[in-house]
Formats: sequence, C-alpha cells, structure tokens
Amino acid sequence: MKERKITRQIRVGSVPVGGGAPVVIQSMNNTKTADVEATLAQLNALSSAGCQIGRLAVPDAEAAEALAKIVPRSPLPLVADIHFDYRLALKSVANGVSALRINPGNIGGEAKVKAVIDAARERNVPIRIGINGGSLEKDLLARYGPTAEAIVESALREAAIFEKYGFDQVKISVKSSSVAKTVAAYELLSEKVDYPLHVGVTEAGTLLKGSVKSAIGIGLLLNEGIGDTIRVSLTGDPVNEVIVAKEILKDLGLRKEGVEIVSCPTCGRTKVDLEKMVAAVETALGNMKADRPITVAVMGCEVNGPGEAKEADYGIANGRGQGLLFRRGEVIGKYKEEEIVAALLREIRRDQKEKQ
Amino acid sequence: MKERKITRQIRVGSVPVGGGAPVVIQSMNNTKTADVEATLAQLNALSSAGCQIGRLAVPDAEAAEALAKIVPRSPLPLVADIHFDYRLALKSVANGVSALRINPGNIGGEAKVKAVIDAARERNVPIRIGINGGSLEKDLLARYGPTAEAIVESALREAAIFEKYGFDQVKISVKSSSVAKTVAAYELLSEKVDYPLHVGVTEAGTLLKGSVKSAIGIGLLLNEGIGDTIRVSLTGDPVNEVIVAKEILKDLGLRKEGVEIVSCPTCGRTKVDLEKMVAAVETALGNMKADRPITVAVMGCEVNGPGEAKEADYGIANGRGQGLLFRRGEVIGKYKEEEIVAALLREIRRDQKEKQ
Repeated sequence: MKERKITRQIRVGSVPVGGGAPVVIQSMNNTKTADVEATLAQLNALSSAGCQIGRLAVPDAEAAEALAKIVPRSPLPLVADIHFDYRLALKSVANGVSALRINPGNIGGEAKVKAVIDAARERNVPIRIGINGGSLEKDLLARYGPTAEAIVESALREAAIFEKYGFDQVKISVKSSSVAKTVAAYELLSEKVDYPLHVGVTEAGTLLKGSVKSAIGIGLLLNEGIGDTIRVSLTGDPVNEVIVAKEILKDLGLRKEGVEIVSCPTCGRTKVDLEKMVAAVETALGNMKADRPITVAVMGCEVNGPGEAKEADYGIANGRGQGLLFRRGEVIGKYKEEEIVAALLREIRRDQKEKQ
Repeated sequence: MKERKITRQIRVGSVPVGGGAPVVIQSMNNTKTADVEATLAQLNALSSAGCQIGRLAVPDAEAAEALAKIVPRSPLPLVADIHFDYRLALKSVANGVSALRINPGNIGGEAKVKAVIDAARERNVPIRIGINGGSLEKDLLARYGPTAEAIVESALREAAIFEKYGFDQVKISVKSSSVAKTVAAYELLSEKVDYPLHVGVTEAGTLLKGSVKSAIGIGLLLNEGIGDTIRVSLTGDPVNEVIVAKEILKDLGLRKEGVEIVSCPTCGRTKVDLEKMVAAVETALGNMKADRPITVAVMGCEVNGPGEAKEADYGIANGRGQGLLFRRGEVIGKYKEEEIVAALLREIRRDQKEKQ
C-alpha cells in the first residue's frame, strides 16, 4: 500500500477530514428529511453501526425547516445535500448543519454560489463539491464525452469559483458509476489539488453487487493513498453502507478495531454445521467493543483448521461432530459441536471482563 | 490497470488457464462428494451461475469412488482436492478428474508426490500447488513466522519437487485470510515464477464481509495484472462465490457480458419505491444472456437520474410517482411508477429478439 497522500484538513463538526486524520466513514439517510423522527431514528442506527458523518437530502423548504429540529438531536454531524435552489443551502446553514454538499453547476450561477459561500464562511461550514458522472455540464460532455477528464474538469471549474472568493474549506468528490472511470477521475484530481477527497463509486447497485463494486473502487483508491472520507453507495438500508465501509477499512489495515472472524468456505470435508456456527459467533461478537482488535477463527476441518485456529486469538478447529478450542495458540479443550460456540464465547467474554 | 502478466498456459479439461486466456472463475462444492446426486445438482447450479471449473473435496475412498459417477455427468471440468492420502489422488485421476489440488507438504513425502506426478502426467492432468497460510510447514513458520515470505517459500519448495521430476503442468495459489498478506504473497510469487496463478483470499468469511474482503484482495491483484483464475471463498452456498467473482471481473473490465444495472442509493429526494423497482429489474435481467453487454440505469430522482439514464443503454429516471423511460440516450415515454419497469423490460426484450 502506498503512503496516504496528505491533504489539507477540514472539519465536519468535530470530525477532522484529511490532513492525515483516519479515513472517515459517512453515509446518507434515505428517510424523508421532513420526517424528523424517522430521520433521527436512522441517524441513530447509522451512528451505532459506526458511521461518523451523516448526510440528508434537502430537496425543499420543508426539509430545510426540519433541520432545525434534527440538528440539535443528531448523534452525527450532518451534511445538507442541496441541488438547484441556493436558498435551501442558506436555510440549512442557518439551521445548524455542519457541512454542505452542493454541485455549484446546478445552483443557479455565480452570484448564488457566492451567497452560499458567504453564509458558509460566516458559520465555519465546509462545502463538498460533489461532481457526479450523471450530471455533467453540457459543454464538458460535448468537449470530452462522459469521461474521467470531463468529471475532473468540472470539479476544477467549481473549485476555481470557491478559490476566487477565497474559500478553502472545501472537499471534493468525482464519482462515476463505473469503477474504472471513478478510479481514473480520483487519480487525476489527486495530482492536481490538495483538497481532502470524499471517495466513492456512485449508484453502485444492490447489496451484494454494489458492495463488491464499492470495495474494488474504494479499495483501489485507498491502496494508492487516495481518499480522506468514504461513502459506500448501496440501493437500500444505509446501515449496510456503514458495515461495508468498515470492512473495507479493516481489510486494508486502515482501521483496527473490534472482532475479525476468519471462517472457511466449507466443503465436502466439513462434518459440522459450520455456517450456523459462524452465524452464531458473528451475531454474538459482531458489535462487541473489544479493548483491542481480536481475531476469531471458526474452521470446518483438519486441513487448515488447526493452523488458522492457532494463529488467531481464539479459534475453533472442527472435526467430526466435535472440535478443538484454541486460545492464544494453545488448545484449551475439546467440545461437542453443539457446545463449542458457547465455550468459545465464554472464554472471550471472560478475557474481556478481566481486563476491564 | 497494469497489463496482465503472461504466464504459461495449462488446461483444466477444455478450459485454458493462464497464457493470456480470459480470467477463469472457479468455485468449490460444499456437498458431500460421496453424495453423487447432491454434488451434481450443485455443480449444475454453479455452472448455470457462470462457474467454469468445479472443485470437490476428496477426503476418503468413498468420495474418490463417487468421482467415477460424477465426472461423466458433470457440466464442469473437475478438480479433486486432496490432503494427507496420496492414494486418493491416484484414484481421483483414474476416475477422470481434470486436475488435482494437493499440498505436497502434507501428502506424505517425496516418493508419494512422485507417484501422484506420474499418474497426472500419464493422464495429462495438471496439479495445483495450494499453499495456505493456515497449514504451513513448521520449519518455515519457525524461520519466517506466519508471513507472506513463509507462504511463498513453501510454494517454491513444492514447485521444486515438481520441477525435479520434469512436471510443469502446475498452477499455484498462496492464500491467506489476511488481505495484505495474500496480496504480498502473490506479488512476491509472481516475480519469481511464471506458472499460472490461482488467486483468492482464503476463509474470507460470511456473505457480505467475505465478498468485500475477496473483492479487495482479488481486485488489487487483478488490477496489478496478477491472476489467471479466481476463487471467491465464502462460508455458505458456493453459487454466491460465482456471482461475486463475475461482479469482480465485470467491475475491472476483465469481462464484458450480460446486464449491468446502475441504481442510486435512494435518499430523502426519492419519491418512488426504488428498491422494489431495482429488485424487479435485477430479477428479470440478472441471468439474461444479452448478445452484447448492456447497461440499465434505474434512478430515483431528477439530480443524476436523467444523466445516468441517458448514458446507459436503457434507463429510468423517476420523479414523483412517475418516470421517464430512456432508450439509447433518447426519452421514449413517460410512465407511472407501477408501469415503468414492465415498459423497460418490454423494450429490452424486443431489442434482443429483433437481433436474433
């Protein structure tokens, strides 16, 4: 993995983004923002899952008004997502959001962009320039076609407006629904600017395919050292976006926390119901706040089972209807299939408790 | 993306692996191999999903015997996965498998490895050297610890035995359950040998997390030009492994076929039940064999909807309770929410039919 590129740092509420801060996970509600209670319930769910910045669509005056009630009760700093009407941005800032996301190209001309900048500056609110391959300016499309170059040119054009008015509390995203185009756009942009970058593949699709697409696109960029905050974009419940984002950061070694479960794919050699066993372990430990990252291996047979179980902090290596339980490299017992998960969990919980 | 490294080519049955052939998708049954009907049913499901090479565990004589009945009826060339007992490898070759996967380190010494090589050579059967971080030799663990270097050293040691006996129909895998270690091991190995490489992250975990982990690990390697055949390793139904593998290849532009669905994540701006709409489109088109790759955008609102719908081969850009239908960049109609998916599918199917 390449060293992370050090960008300028901005703050979204209390959360630093860029400048060497840990990569921040964000997501976006799919509730109606005007529905205050539903929106807060989803923000709480996102926060519990590990989300650090929330984003809300503000498509109309009702949504902008609702922010006055949402912001004070929100567990997360909030970004207001605005298109077409700059007054919604002004209202959102007045109602206390921690950041704006606008696409200056569709906000109605430079005078209106300047009004938004003035309001943001006064309240110390950063702005994301959110360029999206699906909404490029016509002249850029005519000149470049729907390419990474067009996306980056659009971002630079918008950034120039902010620079003209001396506003540098900016982060940028240049998303496309194509992995190759997304990666190319961020690589190009990263060479040209040192603003912090919000990275994601847009409109990635449904849970499984969208997670794979996001993991590849975001993973390739983070591995190149590009990206200060990430958003996984999945059709459906945004809590899944946070689960996938956390997994991406963990897999790349950019975040070390909680419990990592190593489990084999099962095969004709497996002589226990491993899938059930892994699900039980995942359910019990998935949200455990361990004092330090721990690895738990749940393995189906004698081929790789003992090796993985020994290497992990805790491990089960199953055989026919029973398995060996490992703790920090040592076998500490042999248990029947139906008892071994409980024994594993007892050990882990006792160790955690002893340390508290 | 870097150019693909050109390795030597081997053949698993009729499927070329390496030497510039398209990256091959493989998976592994989790049925009992001795259960001939269940094993064949799963092989058929894997084949329908797009799997190109199947693998079966052969843990005992009963499984090895069953191969005589499975091989002639299998829709896929089969790899027999053998550990500990070299006679199972001999029997599997005699029963017609297209390849073997062994870990020579646990097969019982060089004389037995040679017996397997002789049998494989006679039947023109290639062998995968499958090294796994969970089952490394003790002397290597003592010297290197559980590192990428130890994994690669183990692979080279095994390859040397094959080379000593003049057998070069070999592919190699060097898997770990850690993404970083997996990537490091394949990078190192790829510099040292030109055998085709079977790439995967082992014991990646359950469906969602395991898919993300596999997508990152396999994605990073393929993006570096490393990898001739891939296996996604997920606890559970192996058909999901194939779905994820196809998605990885598609996202990296290594495979262009079928239907790609672009869909937005939904937000407070969405005024239709987009998740339901996308699910209906995915169900209807997921397995469609289009004559060429087609893109279908299903978008929730007026921000990026028209742009993505226009850029795709077919698209829906929804507004409040109704949407515009696009075909090859042109609006061809406006439909109510409950009618628009049917209209989209009619267009696609008519176009496909006209071409046949």
